[in-house]
Amino acid sequence: MSSVGAPDAAARGERRDARLRRVRDRMAEMDVRALLLSHGADLPWLTGYRAMPLERLTLLVLPLEGDPVLFVPTLEAPRVSSLPEGIALRPWDETEDPLDLAAAATGPGARGRIALSDRAWAATLLGLQDRLPGARFLAASHVTGALRAVKDPSEIHALRQAGAAADGVAAALQAGEVRLAGRTERDVSQEIAERLVEAGHRQVNFSIVGSGPNGASPHHDAGLRVIAPGDVVVCDFGGQWVAHGDDVGYCSDITRTVVVGDPSPEVRDCYAVLEAAQAAGVAAARPGAAAEDVDHAARQVIADAGLGERFIHRTGHGIGIEEHEDPYVVTGNRTPLVEGHAFSVEPGLYFAGRFGMRLEDIVVVAPHGPDPLNRVDHRLAVVEG
Amino acid sequence: MSSVGAPDAAARGERRDARLRRVRDRMAEMDVRALLLSHGADLPWLTGYRAMPLERLTLLVLPLEGDPVLFVPTLEAPRVSSLPEGIALRPWDETEDPLDLAAAATGPGARGRIALSDRAWAATLLGLQDRLPGARFLAASHVTGALRAVKDPSEIHALRQAGAAADGVAAALQAGEVRLAGRTERDVSQEIAERLVEAGHRQVNFSIVGSGPNGASPHHDAGLRVIAPGDVVVCDFGGQWVAHGDDVGYCSDITRTVVVGDPSPEVRDCYAVLEAAQAAGVAAARPGAAAEDVDHAARQVIADAGLGERFIHRTGHGIGIEEHEDPYVVTGNRTPLVEGHAFSVEPGLYFAGRFGMRLEDIVVVAPHGPDPLNRVDHRLAVVEG
Repeated sequence: MSSVGAPDAAARGERRDARLRRVRDRMAEMDVRALLLSHGADLPWLTGYRAMPLERLTLLVLPLEGDPVLFVPTLEAPRVSSLPEGIALRPWDETEDPLDLAAAATGPGARGRIALSDRAWAATLLGLQDRLPGARFLAASHVTGALRAVKDPSEIHALRQAGAAADGVAAALQAGEVRLAGRTERDVSQEIAERLVEAGHRQVNFSIVGSGPNGASPHHDAGLRVIAPGDVVVCDFGGQWVAHGDDVGYCSDITRTVVVGDPSPEVRDCYAVLEAAQAAGVAAARPGAAAEDVDHAARQVIADAGLGERFIHRTGHGIGIEEHEDPYVVTGNRTPLVEGHAFSVEPGLYFAGRFGMRLEDIVVVAPHGPDPLNRVDHRLAVVEG
Repeated sequence: MSSVGAPDAAARGERRDARLRRVRDRMAEMDVRALLLSHGADLPWLTGYRAMPLERLTLLVLPLEGDPVLFVPTLEAPRVSSLPEGIALRPWDETEDPLDLAAAATGPGARGRIALSDRAWAATLLGLQDRLPGARFLAASHVTGALRAVKDPSEIHALRQAGAAADGVAAALQAGEVRLAGRTERDVSQEIAERLVEAGHRQVNFSIVGSGPNGASPHHDAGLRVIAPGDVVVCDFGGQWVAHGDDVGYCSDITRTVVVGDPSPEVRDCYAVLEAAQAAGVAAARPGAAAEDVDHAARQVIADAGLGERFIHRTGHGIGIEEHEDPYVVTGNRTPLVEGHAFSVEPGLYFAGRFGMRLEDIVVVAPHGPDPLNRVDHRLAVVEG
């Protein structure tokens, strides 16, 4: 450990201790007797360690009272470089049954409410239910969701760095440095992915390139369509960015729409509506507003322009260790926004068989209003055909 | 659709129809009233469509009797390019509850046994259990595992192509074309990943580079350690390879160990044991043997050399659409091997704090014995320091 790294490590340890305290307080409030964490972001958020998405079980058993234990496959044990103090490591061998071990470790929780990672595998839950017939299971997000949704300054710093790195790639697209015309979507997608890595992302999570009619499918897989002059091209990409000296990555996610050659008046008009809608959504991201207010603000601008039916998805999603997490920016989510909430604001317009467009920034709720993490140009980018 | 593509599409349709029939037969045998498929490989194996690992639910409801329905988020619906005949597509909107829809679609299954994808999220299972209190859930692998483990000729073809592509990257490593000395593990890992894509992989699943003492951790994350002369370097990598005209990818997975500069007598001696153990495991992969026999054959060679404690994991795992699937090559798995079983044979030796080594091929069980898909040199590769 370098002398520079030591204070970082100490600060990280303090943050994790604080999270653990808040989790235990919330468990006590909800009468949750044990929290079991496997796949997903709760475990790295709490411990710095991420379960590999493999069939060998990794599971943290955190009883409401008593010491937590992290069960890991023996061959993963060397990867666990540092756990917060007070969490014991228990490697299990290939011939042991890790669900038996985990069930035994829940202790008195075995007859009460037990929370399990939302993204743990169904097969894991079925195995636990068999072994703990007296327990009542619930999804861990009931305990952790609201806590994880509010980012601390170190998390906002990581999201800001991720956003700046993604901005650089978006700027290159807008400036025509990433050639579009004459290339396949897949080829452009690959270049965007490489640029995300060059800009410092540890990993690329997705790189959507939807050109012409393909842009009307919001989650289009970049394919073999060759981009042509006149195309409207939706580019939506993001990855995982790991702060220096940290173990856990935070995500970027940005969408910009680029037109190859002179856009039609219809495209210009629609984009003007989209840009105004996105700005209205961002402006609504203030402490005290509800999450759904951000959706309503963006949607209203689009509805007022007579394009309501073209906006076929929610306005956004929370972002952090996971690309999509609480708070969701969708009708019905009345969660009051507070300082530290981070989410996307990404309205889109989709014209089946013709074209699509979307504009997305990540926004953090700051004390006096929205703090957008993506600053790259919001206007419709036009590149050479 | 091109005239060349049409017969492929027809053959693919026939294969999927055959799979669907076998699944229904197995459901009837087991009295499973409905099969619900979400994340994981069962869904693409059966339909050609893969659920995105996102929080919006994708779920195929296949009742034992009655027509199957695929529920997808509306914004994913355009990605569903072709479903087997007889499967209806039901997009759900952002303000609908997809679990309510899915529960209603299970029909009479609601009071019997229902199988759900092993890798569906626990939160999905909890939601279904709330809505279907009369159902008894089990993991879908009880229905699909043994069927998916036996590959048809098109699947073996895809695995063979994936293996050949990975072999090319391994050969470049062995020939010293991928420089090791003086570079970080992460840098080498990145180059391996790039070469996997250049060799035709659609996606890289992992690229482990464990040098010197890091090689003693079987699943070491490639890190910032700089590879030095004298290092033993374990390189274990694989990705997803999609056959031309197909929608679903099959995986490669290979490990080769490379030494930088002249290996010590100890390293040479250990490697000779490892090579013999791997060959013994491969030779045991015959119809009628049990899966665990392959493990025992490899392990016995290592034990006989007095190194039994250095081999800390099972000998292998099945491979197909997923990197790890049935059949697992581990003590206790008495599944009789049959033609079409495909799995890794990958013994390893690990010396904590010093070095590790592993040797891995994918092997298909053919009528008269093992058919290894990886053919690249099995000897200890020595590259310049």
